[in-house]
Amino acid sequence: MAAHPPFKFSATTRVGFSDTDAQGVVYYGRYMPYFDFARVEYHRQLELMRVQSAGEFVMRAMQVEYHAPARFDDPIEVEVRVARIGTTSITYEFAAYLEQDVLAVTATQTLVLVDLAERTPLRIPDSFRRPIVEFEGPTVEA
Amino acid sequence: MAAHPPFKFSATTRVGFSDTDAQGVVYYGRYMPYFDFARVEYHRQLELMRVQSAGEFVMRAMQVEYHAPARFDDPIEVEVRVARIGTTSITYEFAAYLEQDVLAVTATQTLVLVDLAERTPLRIPDSFRRPIVEFEGPTVEA
Amino acid sequence: MAAHPPFKFSATTRVGFSDTDAQGVVYYGRYMPYFDFARVEYHRQLELMRVQSAGEFVMRAMQVEYHAPARFDDPIEVEVRVARIGTTSITYEFAAYLEQDVLAVTATQTLVLVDLAERTPLRIPDSFRRPIVEFEGPTVEA
Amino acid sequence: MAAHPPFKFSATTRVGFSDTDAQGVVYYGRYMPYFDFARVEYHRQLELMRVQSAGEFVMRAMQVEYHAPARFDDPIEVEVRVARIGTTSITYEFAAYLEQDVLAVTATQTLVLVDLAERTPLRIPDSFRRPIVEFEGPTVEA
Repeated sequence: MAAHPPFKFSATTRVGFSDTDAQGVVYYGRYMPYFDFARVEYHRQLELMRVQSAGEFVMRAMQVEYHAPARFDDPIEVEVRVARIGTTSITYEFAAYLEQDVLAVTATQTLVLVDLAERTPLRIPDSFRRPIVEFEGPTVEA
Repeated sequence: MAAHPPFKFSATTRVGFSDTDAQGVVYYGRYMPYFDFARVEYHRQLELMRVQSAGEFVMRAMQVEYHAPARFDDPIEVEVRVARIGTTSITYEFAAYLEQDVLAVTATQTLVLVDLAERTPLRIPDSFRRPIVEFEGPTVEA
Repeated sequence: MAAHPPFKFSATTRVGFSDTDAQGVVYYGRYMPYFDFARVEYHRQLELMRVQSAGEFVMRAMQVEYHAPARFDDPIEVEVRVARIGTTSITYEFAAYLEQDVLAVTATQTLVLVDLAERTPLRIPDSFRRPIVEFEGPTVEA
Repeated sequence: MAAHPPFKFSATTRVGFSDTDAQGVVYYGRYMPYFDFARVEYHRQLELMRVQSAGEFVMRAMQVEYHAPARFDDPIEVEVRVARIGTTSITYEFAAYLEQDVLAVTATQTLVLVDLAERTPLRIPDSFRRPIVEFEGPTVEA
């Protein structure tokens, strides 16, 4: 499926039974693995999975809005883009769609590259930054 | 432990091994069950668990900020309060502390009372609203 | 990948970050969604997803053996077959492989078709049984 | 609550909303964190949490039987005991009860002490073994 602008990338998954709760829909905290899945596939496409770095990205902030419920076995198309990349942090946006273009969930996540032991911020390497700027355009660095 | 103002209620849980991830800390999406736990215990204390309603609360929006990592077996004190109660929706705030007063995570959640089949908003019953206004004070209805 | 006999069907997934734990490998309780995924895809291929039934399958018993650890982003090929189908219950076997034919986990699950409200066993409909017997061979009914 | 013989220890938890699935009951794969919880509390009581070891315990095999469903907010009393302790492995048994003595789930788990990097078995230290043999009786070493 073509992603909705400004998104240029999406990955499709499916609701597992273990994602549902007693209200018969996906538990609100079980969208995070879908976001991870889309973020990882985005990284894979931009060949960022193999970038060596002294640190790891950790979650700093997340906002989620729930628009429509998803149910067992629903296909979910998770669109993802980088909205901003700074010196040590990166902000992703997500939009998850059900079939027939029904918007289920939108989200924003800001991750920081840190030294895992010290939890101090590290500079995001150029080899990670460059493919993102090329793919999303120079405004992500604004 | 006494809750930090403006919080007046907290519930304490502990990090299970299944809450951790390969970074050695609590996975960012595994704080949601801690928030649920604190919200339920808050409801239990205000005797809201037995309020009959035609609908159920569903998540509408959530913001989370991650301040410090929690690790396996850490005790976590989750403070919770109602920040605002409207006609059909309710907004909770959370602050989760590790030992020695280290702030781990803060969050805001807005839930809407809906008819589960139609997903249409319902009026929050007075029997649910009144104990909250009594406990938190009249500003929650502002 | 060709399934290892007696398996004739497999579905491939990938380890998400949320599946890992602080030992750096997949948490032992996070293989269950992989088994569900393979069971659902097996059902989909045999066109069992659309079989109408008065009840639902619930888990009755499970055995799991852990042979080798899986790590973040590992592809996992989950082989699944029906080992036995009785009047009201069905037994699945699973074998999950990492790359280069490394066996990660094997499992057996027995589910019973029940009326969800009463939890009483129901007869598995022929429209569900027949495609399985055709696919696996008559010994599954022995 | 007094544990049912041969169990001599139990820990009580409660079903969180995130533990439920679309059948309205606890998802079969969400009992594992309850078992972990009981195992950890058993270790804490026997002062095994502070035993230093060169390795960590990893899951080798698990059997679970599901007898009755648990629902949101149900208290669950998880009884746990060591059934056998060998040179490098240890077998726990679990029985989880709902209120009014309703047996929900029984399980057996065998864990092996390993060097996490090499995954080779290590000898369980006497400082870990001795308190268990004292608590459960000498037959656990048979």
